[in-house]
Amino acid sequence: MDTFDVTILGCSSATPAYGRNPSSQLVRYSGHHFLVDCGEAAQMQLRRYSIKFQRINHIFISHLHGDHFLGLPGLLSSMHLLGRTEPLHIYAEEGLKQILDTTHHNSRTTLQYPLVFHAIDMTKANMLYEDEKLTIRSIVMKHSIPCCGFIFEEKPHKRRLLKEQLEKYNIPLAKMETLKKGEDFINGEGKIITNDLLTLPPHHARKYSCCSDTIYNEDILPEITKSDLLYHEATFTEEFRDRAKQTMHCTAKDAANIALKAEVNKLLIGHFSARYRELEPLLHEAKEVFSNTYLAEEGTTFNVESNVTVNG
Amino acid sequence: MDTFDVTILGCSSATPAYGRNPSSQLVRYSGHHFLVDCGEAAQMQLRRYSIKFQRINHIFISHLHGDHFLGLPGLLSSMHLLGRTEPLHIYAEEGLKQILDTTHHNSRTTLQYPLVFHAIDMTKANMLYEDEKLTIRSIVMKHSIPCCGFIFEEKPHKRRLLKEQLEKYNIPLAKMETLKKGEDFINGEGKIITNDLLTLPPHHARKYSCCSDTIYNEDILPEITKSDLLYHEATFTEEFRDRAKQTMHCTAKDAANIALKAEVNKLLIGHFSARYRELEPLLHEAKEVFSNTYLAEEGTTFNVESNVTVNG
Repeated sequence: MDTFDVTILGCSSATPAYGRNPSSQLVRYSGHHFLVDCGEAAQMQLRRYSIKFQRINHIFISHLHGDHFLGLPGLLSSMHLLGRTEPLHIYAEEGLKQILDTTHHNSRTTLQYPLVFHAIDMTKANMLYEDEKLTIRSIVMKHSIPCCGFIFEEKPHKRRLLKEQLEKYNIPLAKMETLKKGEDFINGEGKIITNDLLTLPPHHARKYSCCSDTIYNEDILPEITKSDLLYHEATFTEEFRDRAKQTMHCTAKDAANIALKAEVNKLLIGHFSARYRELEPLLHEAKEVFSNTYLAEEGTTFNVESNVTVNG
Repeated sequence: MDTFDVTILGCSSATPAYGRNPSSQLVRYSGHHFLVDCGEAAQMQLRRYSIKFQRINHIFISHLHGDHFLGLPGLLSSMHLLGRTEPLHIYAEEGLKQILDTTHHNSRTTLQYPLVFHAIDMTKANMLYEDEKLTIRSIVMKHSIPCCGFIFEEKPHKRRLLKEQLEKYNIPLAKMETLKKGEDFINGEGKIITNDLLTLPPHHARKYSCCSDTIYNEDILPEITKSDLLYHEATFTEEFRDRAKQTMHCTAKDAANIALKAEVNKLLIGHFSARYRELEPLLHEAKEVFSNTYLAEEGTTFNVESNVTVNG
């Protein structure tokens, strides 16, 4: 099974506090390193957790509030100074390009690697990245400025071949791909060997949904439904529900309700307000609604894994 | 005696390494907090050392390499979010204003306090700040891009009144200011009471010179001469002298030679290359030339104090 996990680099909201850093997380999938948001000091956090940051080729920025992108110029600079030549892809609202261009112009910086900027249309869902195994899409969040979430989803796996059965029925090599797609096999005598005799059901296709700054918004449910892992912001406790509404954020209970309604497997909450020294009250309130909830604490890695069991 | 000290917030050069942060230091003088340079994560460092960052009203940026200013947008944002209303003065090359304006525009940030930008003419020395006790000047550094150093200097103190003598000679209150300036007193009978009977010499006026990125440059000697404390960059050991020259930086020995020739009291070296896990070799090389040298290690505070003793 391919690696698919999420390492939290920062879990603080707008102002860093109690040693917590602003938003950033690393998503690893099958040898790829993807960075989601890049708050100030993300490069220090990558170093702290011994993550080889030159392996990051794709960076996704949810929105242009400083706590989600101010670590980017420093990271780009360090990549440059440490000899990067590989292209780096950045996916964000267009304004970020202006910020980077102005910063590089005035600091007389010419990056020695190609920076490929992909402007996200923040008004709709978009396919941002696709390879043979994985897709990454943006979905629309509701926040005080344009904001998007990101959905990392494995492509449907193929059915798994039963080697012994293939030999038993003497299936030619050329037919393997059609079997993986679920088709039956018809031998030279016209006899049908049904697919279920030759293959096992495919592995579950895993899904990670990452929902940064947003008000409580059920519109996202169809997009994030049945995620194996959902990260959802949970800036406040219930005591500060009015403040959450005013600043277009969620409470921990809101996040848990979204997780419950979307029927996800596991919930990570993060983006904690600087008013909380201790995070247990946030976890407690979420767990009352959705028990399989965890704090997105820095340095912690969460596997994207299903509780779906497949035959075989 | 007024407080006059320097707290190191970051001592790394271009890329942060071994837990060391990029350049930033806090200069405190008589209730004022001045920030010199503001590398990434300076706001986290201010918190780590329990420095009330809303007390900073003046920020000086030596030059626009990222490791000297990328922490500024985050610090400005946190000041804003935590309710600042006091004006904040920033002194830097003009391009920094473009960077900040573009960042604020695209992140839809309207600071709720006045940001007063003072563009420094980097081609010459300038008086940047003056109050009744202190001046702060910029001086020209020689680096790969325009760069300046900063000189914090107490104004000459006045002579100190000897209270008992004033009573003995029955000096009227109105004459105190002229005595402090060194004038003699002539009493009603025309008799001269010489100033040295009534006052002690003034306290030594202290001077802190902060020289960030630069090649070895003796042109600065007249400006920094007889500093009580000199911070001078020392990016490399002698082994990497060629690299120092190529990147327009100094070795630790260069910094020590400047300290020696400028007849300063104490030398702080910093801006260490990411290639050094241990800093002792840099200190050792500097001390061979100038024994009163210290490493600008993060979290350390250095008093600006003279070895000049004055009578009384």
